[in-house]
Amino acid sequence: MSKKGQEIWAKAKKIIPGGNMILSKRPEMFLPDQWPVYFSKAKGYNIWDLENNKYVDMSLMGVGTNILGYGHEEVDNAVIENIKNGNMSTLNCKEEFILAEKLIEINTPWGEMVKFARSGGEANAIAIRIARAASGKDQIAICGYHGWHDWYLSANLNNKDKLESHLLPNLETCGVPRGLANTVFPFSYNNFSELESIIENNDIGVVKMEVVRTQEPTDDFLQKIREITKKKNIILIFDECTSGFRETYGGISKKYQVQPDMTMFGKALGNGYGITAVIGKKEIMEHAQSSFISSTFWSERTGFTAGIKTLEVMQAMKSWEIITKNGKYIKDNWKKIADQYDLGIDIWGIDALPGFTIKSKNYLKYKTYISQTMLENKILASNAVYVSIVHDKKIIDEYLQILSEIFKTIKECEDGRNIDSLLKGPVCQSGFKRIN
Amino acid sequence: MSKKGQEIWAKAKKIIPGGNMILSKRPEMFLPDQWPVYFSKAKGYNIWDLENNKYVDMSLMGVGTNILGYGHEEVDNAVIENIKNGNMSTLNCKEEFILAEKLIEINTPWGEMVKFARSGGEANAIAIRIARAASGKDQIAICGYHGWHDWYLSANLNNKDKLESHLLPNLETCGVPRGLANTVFPFSYNNFSELESIIENNDIGVVKMEVVRTQEPTDDFLQKIREITKKKNIILIFDECTSGFRETYGGISKKYQVQPDMTMFGKALGNGYGITAVIGKKEIMEHAQSSFISSTFWSERTGFTAGIKTLEVMQAMKSWEIITKNGKYIKDNWKKIADQYDLGIDIWGIDALPGFTIKSKNYLKYKTYISQTMLENKILASNAVYVSIVHDKKIIDEYLQILSEIFKTIKECEDGRNIDSLLKGPVCQSGFKRIN
Repeated sequence: MSKKGQEIWAKAKKIIPGGNMILSKRPEMFLPDQWPVYFSKAKGYNIWDLENNKYVDMSLMGVGTNILGYGHEEVDNAVIENIKNGNMSTLNCKEEFILAEKLIEINTPWGEMVKFARSGGEANAIAIRIARAASGKDQIAICGYHGWHDWYLSANLNNKDKLESHLLPNLETCGVPRGLANTVFPFSYNNFSELESIIENNDIGVVKMEVVRTQEPTDDFLQKIREITKKKNIILIFDECTSGFRETYGGISKKYQVQPDMTMFGKALGNGYGITAVIGKKEIMEHAQSSFISSTFWSERTGFTAGIKTLEVMQAMKSWEIITKNGKYIKDNWKKIADQYDLGIDIWGIDALPGFTIKSKNYLKYKTYISQTMLENKILASNAVYVSIVHDKKIIDEYLQILSEIFKTIKECEDGRNIDSLLKGPVCQSGFKRIN
Repeated sequence: MSKKGQEIWAKAKKIIPGGNMILSKRPEMFLPDQWPVYFSKAKGYNIWDLENNKYVDMSLMGVGTNILGYGHEEVDNAVIENIKNGNMSTLNCKEEFILAEKLIEINTPWGEMVKFARSGGEANAIAIRIARAASGKDQIAICGYHGWHDWYLSANLNNKDKLESHLLPNLETCGVPRGLANTVFPFSYNNFSELESIIENNDIGVVKMEVVRTQEPTDDFLQKIREITKKKNIILIFDECTSGFRETYGGISKKYQVQPDMTMFGKALGNGYGITAVIGKKEIMEHAQSSFISSTFWSERTGFTAGIKTLEVMQAMKSWEIITKNGKYIKDNWKKIADQYDLGIDIWGIDALPGFTIKSKNYLKYKTYISQTMLENKILASNAVYVSIVHDKKIIDEYLQILSEIFKTIKECEDGRNIDSLLKGPVCQSGFKRIN
């Protein structure tokens, strides 16, 4: 256990609301009171805590940012070279143009223009501003997670369960202006008739969605959405901030052969450096010029440079094939060891972002127990893996071997053994909760 | 002239709406068709274009980001060290806690909690979300420039002149949802009775303003705002994204001895690296926990590290005193040479961000002529200087000597010489315009 990490976390919660900048990195989401919380070093799949204990990251890999592993040398060297030549100036950097060209190439034939930002929430808000300007309509239908901004959270203004399956259950909307009520309408994945009815009963100008999240599209879901949006002159936006570069060189929409009018990339685009992008058809993107969308730090050079180099490396080694293959291997083996102990689990997510849920009322306790036992074995893990190219068969097998022992114990608990007696601290949280 | 720069710019405008990420860096704002546009290297006050021509930056210094000059060695080394140890991981970085502690110390006694982001627009939107959540009210009075987000631009929904003096004249609000109409009410600087009347006639929960912009507060403007907001239980937010660290070690509000309830820093906080912050009283900031405000790239390590080191360096050398002294020297000499040629100019801005406007119907042509002539002398300049610590008396005097010649010519034009015949390209733009 990292005593220093827990000490700082206790102080951090007093001066940072919620303790840090992203919900998914709160220790309470994994292993309250025991999680190392802070890192001093990260390289490949390894993370070192403040006491220099070394762990293997079989969990979120920076919450999906590092497909090439932590500290990828080519990407880092390109960024360092940039810093030595100056990362900022009154003039622009040509890297923004080069990265834009690359993203257009990736999204041939429909992608024609690009805007950049530094976070996924921003990219989502830029896309919505442009799409609203282009459609002339305020109402949007959404499916999936699209950030923290007002436009998105407003879906919960009249009913705080609306974003339950897209973001989190019971999300309060304090601070989101009430005038935004009835502008955003969520529909469930694979429920095309729900979207049809939303379009029927409102004046929808934009449909924004994650192409896939935890389940595969069925019954031509994506094709039908493409058809109805085309027919009704609605702008279709695919949010690929999470799914981008996991199964193809670009959006996962390529796999399903459905082309949107706009798309966003984030997360993995710069292998850990802050860079996100909005790509779209020219006739739509040009509407950015009828609005004011401008920010100083969007012009900083390191993000573009990291993006360019990350794309080069991903393309050269076909990283999406590696992580998909290894993610599938993880899924197959989860099933194998669960079957071995006759433990009921649900497996979800695309192959490169696999997750599982133990079918039991005690699933959160079991999840906590997994993180606790993995940590004792110097592995950071819970019930989801963001696979990177550095996760080779050897390290995956080591992880699976320990997980097998854990599943065995969990099965014993399902059969009567007391899980509470095995837990050395509080149970992890399942979603958004106030922490003190 | 940088041929390569202009060539790439022509192509960039075809694939990036508006050509780049920030209005203030568009070449059309300085010297259309002639501006070098792109940089390859920046160090101290120097910028090199794509042909390796070396310039002195007497203009925006990254649009206010680089008080310590470009490529400050201590800041860059700290960032590079971070990159070598990994800039990202599934665990948090302790640098976010350290930077939060420093910002609280700077804002003693009222600053108690901190949230971070990567751009000024984001920091502004976070502050508004939290303040709306804390006040329970949607209506806001504003004075100044606060970014590109919906909440702010909505001020123009009913009347596109509302943000004229705060941001730009005639700003269209395409894409801003109409439900936000009547949520944001601009008031003019030094017009306290206008704010009083806004508060009288609406249900204002938040006042957000720039502490100073182009003019000094008169008639206890700031004190009166502090009094009325306290009395009416309104949250007072000072947006110090631009003014921060220009005259004090922290907000310029310290100079006027007025304490807000919340404040934001951006621009200069990381000397060119993307890091921005929201600081506030605990009772207000804790309301962040009743909303969802979370983003992956806010947790990336380089921004915090740049911030920590930049604060250290600024504090050690009292950078705000150096830039204020040198900025004042520039202002004094602008007046001197204008007087010498009997040229009427208005001088504005705080000392560290001085600007001037030539009192003439031809002022935009003269501004263009200044940029053109300065460029011939390998200086990037227009009518405003973002002073940095590396702008010493020697380089300022060189700039002033050339400016003196320019003022002499402009005076001749005022007396009948044809300015058009002196311009080698189009006149610069004055604000937000569609470009092709």
